[in-house]
Amino acid sequence: MTATVSPVSLQAVAGPGRPEPTPALHELYRGFEQELLVPLWTEIGDLMPSAPRPSAVAHRWRWATLLRLAERAGELVPVGRGGERRAVALANPGLGGLPYATPTLWAAIQYLNPGEDAPVHRHSQHAFRFVVEGEGVWTVVDGDPVAMRRGDFLLTPGWHFHGHHNQAETPMAWLDGLDIPLSHHIGSTFFETGPDTVADRSTPDRSRAERLWAHPGLRPVSRPGSLPSSPVAAYRWEHTDAALRDQLALADEGFPGVVGPGHAAVRFTNPSNGGDVMPTIRAEMHRLRPGARTATRREVGSSVWQVFDGAGTVRVGDDEWEVGRGDLVTVPSWQPLGVRTGDGLDLFRFSDAPLFERLHADRVQIDTPEENHP
Amino acid sequence: MTATVSPVSLQAVAGPGRPEPTPALHELYRGFEQELLVPLWTEIGDLMPSAPRPSAVAHRWRWATLLRLAERAGELVPVGRGGERRAVALANPGLGGLPYATPTLWAAIQYLNPGEDAPVHRHSQHAFRFVVEGEGVWTVVDGDPVAMRRGDFLLTPGWHFHGHHNQAETPMAWLDGLDIPLSHHIGSTFFETGPDTVADRSTPDRSRAERLWAHPGLRPVSRPGSLPSSPVAAYRWEHTDAALRDQLALADEGFPGVVGPGHAAVRFTNPSNGGDVMPTIRAEMHRLRPGARTATRREVGSSVWQVFDGAGTVRVGDDEWEVGRGDLVTVPSWQPLGVRTGDGLDLFRFSDAPLFERLHADRVQIDTPEENHP
Amino acid sequence: MTATVSPVSLQAVAGPGRPEPTPALHELYRGFEQELLVPLWTEIGDLMPSAPRPSAVAHRWRWATLLRLAERAGELVPVGRGGERRAVALANPGLGGLPYATPTLWAAIQYLNPGEDAPVHRHSQHAFRFVVEGEGVWTVVDGDPVAMRRGDFLLTPGWHFHGHHNQAETPMAWLDGLDIPLSHHIGSTFFETGPDTVADRSTPDRSRAERLWAHPGLRPVSRPGSLPSSPVAAYRWEHTDAALRDQLALADEGFPGVVGPGHAAVRFTNPSNGGDVMPTIRAEMHRLRPGARTATRREVGSSVWQVFDGAGTVRVGDDEWEVGRGDLVTVPSWQPLGVRTGDGLDLFRFSDAPLFERLHADRVQIDTPEENHP
Amino acid sequence: MTATVSPVSLQAVAGPGRPEPTPALHELYRGFEQELLVPLWTEIGDLMPSAPRPSAVAHRWRWATLLRLAERAGELVPVGRGGERRAVALANPGLGGLPYATPTLWAAIQYLNPGEDAPVHRHSQHAFRFVVEGEGVWTVVDGDPVAMRRGDFLLTPGWHFHGHHNQAETPMAWLDGLDIPLSHHIGSTFFETGPDTVADRSTPDRSRAERLWAHPGLRPVSRPGSLPSSPVAAYRWEHTDAALRDQLALADEGFPGVVGPGHAAVRFTNPSNGGDVMPTIRAEMHRLRPGARTATRREVGSSVWQVFDGAGTVRVGDDEWEVGRGDLVTVPSWQPLGVRTGDGLDLFRFSDAPLFERLHADRVQIDTPEENHP
Repeated sequence: MTATVSPVSLQAVAGPGRPEPTPALHELYRGFEQELLVPLWTEIGDLMPSAPRPSAVAHRWRWATLLRLAERAGELVPVGRGGERRAVALANPGLGGLPYATPTLWAAIQYLNPGEDAPVHRHSQHAFRFVVEGEGVWTVVDGDPVAMRRGDFLLTPGWHFHGHHNQAETPMAWLDGLDIPLSHHIGSTFFETGPDTVADRSTPDRSRAERLWAHPGLRPVSRPGSLPSSPVAAYRWEHTDAALRDQLALADEGFPGVVGPGHAAVRFTNPSNGGDVMPTIRAEMHRLRPGARTATRREVGSSVWQVFDGAGTVRVGDDEWEVGRGDLVTVPSWQPLGVRTGDGLDLFRFSDAPLFERLHADRVQIDTPEENHP
Repeated sequence: MTATVSPVSLQAVAGPGRPEPTPALHELYRGFEQELLVPLWTEIGDLMPSAPRPSAVAHRWRWATLLRLAERAGELVPVGRGGERRAVALANPGLGGLPYATPTLWAAIQYLNPGEDAPVHRHSQHAFRFVVEGEGVWTVVDGDPVAMRRGDFLLTPGWHFHGHHNQAETPMAWLDGLDIPLSHHIGSTFFETGPDTVADRSTPDRSRAERLWAHPGLRPVSRPGSLPSSPVAAYRWEHTDAALRDQLALADEGFPGVVGPGHAAVRFTNPSNGGDVMPTIRAEMHRLRPGARTATRREVGSSVWQVFDGAGTVRVGDDEWEVGRGDLVTVPSWQPLGVRTGDGLDLFRFSDAPLFERLHADRVQIDTPEENHP
Repeated sequence: MTATVSPVSLQAVAGPGRPEPTPALHELYRGFEQELLVPLWTEIGDLMPSAPRPSAVAHRWRWATLLRLAERAGELVPVGRGGERRAVALANPGLGGLPYATPTLWAAIQYLNPGEDAPVHRHSQHAFRFVVEGEGVWTVVDGDPVAMRRGDFLLTPGWHFHGHHNQAETPMAWLDGLDIPLSHHIGSTFFETGPDTVADRSTPDRSRAERLWAHPGLRPVSRPGSLPSSPVAAYRWEHTDAALRDQLALADEGFPGVVGPGHAAVRFTNPSNGGDVMPTIRAEMHRLRPGARTATRREVGSSVWQVFDGAGTVRVGDDEWEVGRGDLVTVPSWQPLGVRTGDGLDLFRFSDAPLFERLHADRVQIDTPEENHP
Repeated sequence: MTATVSPVSLQAVAGPGRPEPTPALHELYRGFEQELLVPLWTEIGDLMPSAPRPSAVAHRWRWATLLRLAERAGELVPVGRGGERRAVALANPGLGGLPYATPTLWAAIQYLNPGEDAPVHRHSQHAFRFVVEGEGVWTVVDGDPVAMRRGDFLLTPGWHFHGHHNQAETPMAWLDGLDIPLSHHIGSTFFETGPDTVADRSTPDRSRAERLWAHPGLRPVSRPGSLPSSPVAAYRWEHTDAALRDQLALADEGFPGVVGPGHAAVRFTNPSNGGDVMPTIRAEMHRLRPGARTATRREVGSSVWQVFDGAGTVRVGDDEWEVGRGDLVTVPSWQPLGVRTGDGLDLFRFSDAPLFERLHADRVQIDTPEENHP
């Protein structure tokens, strides 16, 4: 995982705004190299393009492929201290083999056999799980067992101890999302191990965190103030589904609420401040009605989409993919994205949008507005 | 509603830090009066006491009495444009007959006969309704019909058009809470009339606002940002009750969450920012288990409590009252409040706490901590 | 300072939206009175007018008159513990003799003879001093001596111990501004005495607070975060004057910055967050060029203006006054205010605007825009 | 500037928590590679270390060397459209030859000959200039000419048009700081060209921005609200120097304010909100008295230090360098830093701290406290 850079960019290349290559210039450039210096004028095109030109590319991963390899790993690779998790990450083909879905986001399939424990640890990186299928694992976050079921979105904000254990008779796989690439790049990574197995092996339907916090518009009086990350350990599918259905029903009745024709969307939030679930990660669920299509839209920052249900077509720039349940697509910064569906589509999405909003660097551009499908 | 002040305080009264009364001093004080001036040294004891010494007092109103008078008003007083609402307000005995529950809060019983319409208007004052019993009225807020049922807490934030209509065969009464006294004192009152009757007479179970916003931890992607007041038109009893039950059950299991032994409490919040429902009003529901008692606690700012269910004893300073369903108690600033119950008690509470927090003037003092009742 | 209210408003007065007076209605109203209740329908006109209709009125006080009476008080009234300060407050003629300039603001002349000490105390009310003339007093805030000189604006945020002592050969008078009326009304007043005399009698030119904080755009690294009130003990006239001159010079050169033609204005701020100096008080200095006039402008909330230099005309609603150095004018909520001058005018202004902005209750309306004077 | 990654990390390496290498495992790993996947268990040590283990290293660059090479570039490399700036950037030896001082920060020497113009452009990246010596260049920011003089700190927040022109008889060099590496990594880069030369060639002492905003504790009433970046175009040395002198004088008198014994520090701030000058960059000036030393301190996030005056020793981890005027040192995330001086030292510092604070990822650890030097 070490990067090397060829010195070719330092060679005297003629071009607009660049000096003629001469022996003297060559000597100057050699001086730069010796003194660990790089001129702006040879690099500015790459460094400061007129609009974001990310190295990361759009790409689709098939869930079936991920699952097949994860199953094989389930046979060959034990889960335990050291390796910590049986997780296999998307490696964006534009990022030189690094296990990064985008420059800021990590996306992996995690796989746990019946009876297995993923050992307890904590880290400064923020994490979530999204369950595209299956159930039977409990993730225990700071001692609070959280059931994982299809459609659920589950949080492990930074520096909370957590382990997982599979109580079912069958293996379970799910999507892990983290901000590993961002925190690795900026250098804010802390990690600590806990016990090798999870202490509280109870299997409640609802976590204690949900019982305290997952009541609409209510918060415990004993917990005032704004918290950096959401205290809601699990956002259950029944609520997400109901909210999406409500939006589309409102649209049918002629009232606002959807983001576009046939396109409902809810954002998972931190009820202590109404903002995103974690400081670096935004998460949303989108629903497209049969026949609907989204606007074609660019935004600064990258995202990963996973099909939760249905089938459709995702277009990013010039690439276009058919997608079905569990398939994943990466969307690099400022690449135009459009989605359409024949029979309807539910999509989970996570992105690094909070980072850009906090830096006042967020920008959005609609290339083609949503079309009106009845 | 005009206040007069006796000039007695300007007389030359001897006392610590006050000059001896002499003819010259008397002449000086006459000069002050003529020039519309008042010296600090004669007033400072009243103006700047060592701790808040509010004019408002603690008092209990019986719901049965309010209801009886409201029913009689239902026979004698029409509802319509001009009078606007058949509402009868608590007039704190310390506030000289003004219709103020406290210096900042208005609390009234509102009463609507079958078939009646309270005409549409809007005002800058923030309002809520709390339903201690009955159902059958819809409050229509900016065109969105909101059902009112026992236990529900309903919002009409400032400058939203709203009217009420009773679709039931029976009258309905409820508690109105507003910040009329505060906004009247500081001079921020705007008012505008709308149609005499409510346009949308449909009677949906859930308002459109709830369908968009009342999903736990979720918000519509189409509605970003922080809103000054909560967009949740109604907080339903089933959710409030569940949240209180969950807190007490967690306590039974040995986990934190309640505010004290046997004392659960939830705050109604603005899901767009996690703060209070409206800029000037905090609202909460408290539940005391059989045999429980709260801490004795003072806080800067005033509040009004209404019994939702059960019976108990409320002590404020040296006053103590038995309270049952619907009864109301005012608690002035910095007065020590304690509540206890034999058979269990559910209490709705609203206060002006957001005002003090926004001004960094909030203070709390626990005189006697919660006792441990099993 | 006790208010009484005549029960006349409870009588059965016919009017739009009011029921016909009958014996039965009369009996109902008597029932209300007995039970400490007041109906909305008889009060709504006063309580909820279509726009703010403050009891407070616009009024002008002459500085010469204030100073004459303060001098006389300097002969007759000692300064010391109990009376605390030789301060004489404006009593707005609309507020029933209470020592309130407006419902939220206190404005007083304070007077200290040579060698006198105003004893040390602290209170939750926020205070400032503005010096229209003279010098020689040091106000010692939490042990930090702060020189007071013509044009200076000085802070004593809530709960800081402070005393004053006059080191000059001559008496000194200045304007005190506080939020006494607001905090008295809402019940947030705390007060504590300190030593009878000021401990540190040194007379530095600059306070320690200024040395730490009064450098443009800089803050000490040792003091991070946002502070509720400004840590700048004194805003010196030389800086205020320079900022106003710069604004007018920029206007001469064709660049923006003034609030209107010939009308420059700076706001005193809390450098730790860029907001107002204290949670309840906004303070500004305005300069009108010879021949200039301001827009006619209403805003929710009240203010007090004091002429610092020059002469002009202040119009509030239908009232109009000539004003010169030291004269004070109160401006109630939502009253249209316009100022004009022949030979130029410098005006100090303080208001309760932060209260309304924090409650999202601020509104402004321009009745007549600023005219263009070259 | 393209990174390549060797696949070695995917090989079956035995180790704690890693499976035994077998042909089956090898095949699984080949499957991962083919499907653009990377397992966590082979990478976790690098990706999620127990504490930040940055690739960037601490390094010192000599100003004399930079200046010599910049002068030579001044002879050989024209300034103009395309190359845009004659700037030569520090390339951290740990970052594979990329022109990055740290993973988030760019630091370069910029050089302009007499009469030269750096053409007008704008970009989303935030920029500043710090002048260690010389004068005579004006940077024109959105049409506002800003003089550059020794000790001045000058801002060009993102998306403001700016160009530079040298009006002196001599060349001028200065330090440029930007967030190019961060915005390049996260993909938020926009760039636009303006005119080839600067339109307003006037040479005022103070910019218009300073005349509006650089008055201590004051802001123009015409410019309300919080701005994303500071509107102060230039922080002048005379103010910075005075603030540092004041802190040390206060310490001599026994009062708080310095960050440690003999160690004064001021932060450049955004007066509209009291925060950092730009969303991604913190800037400070530190002064060490003769004989003083700082604490040894780690913080999450990286920084660049430049000596403004004096001489001393900088230790980062196990590295230690003597530094004098203009010398630059990079400090990677979480590396322990200590500075000491014999004869006194003034240090300019910039860092990415705002990024971490906005993400709630800031951490500080003091390894050795400041020693007490008289």
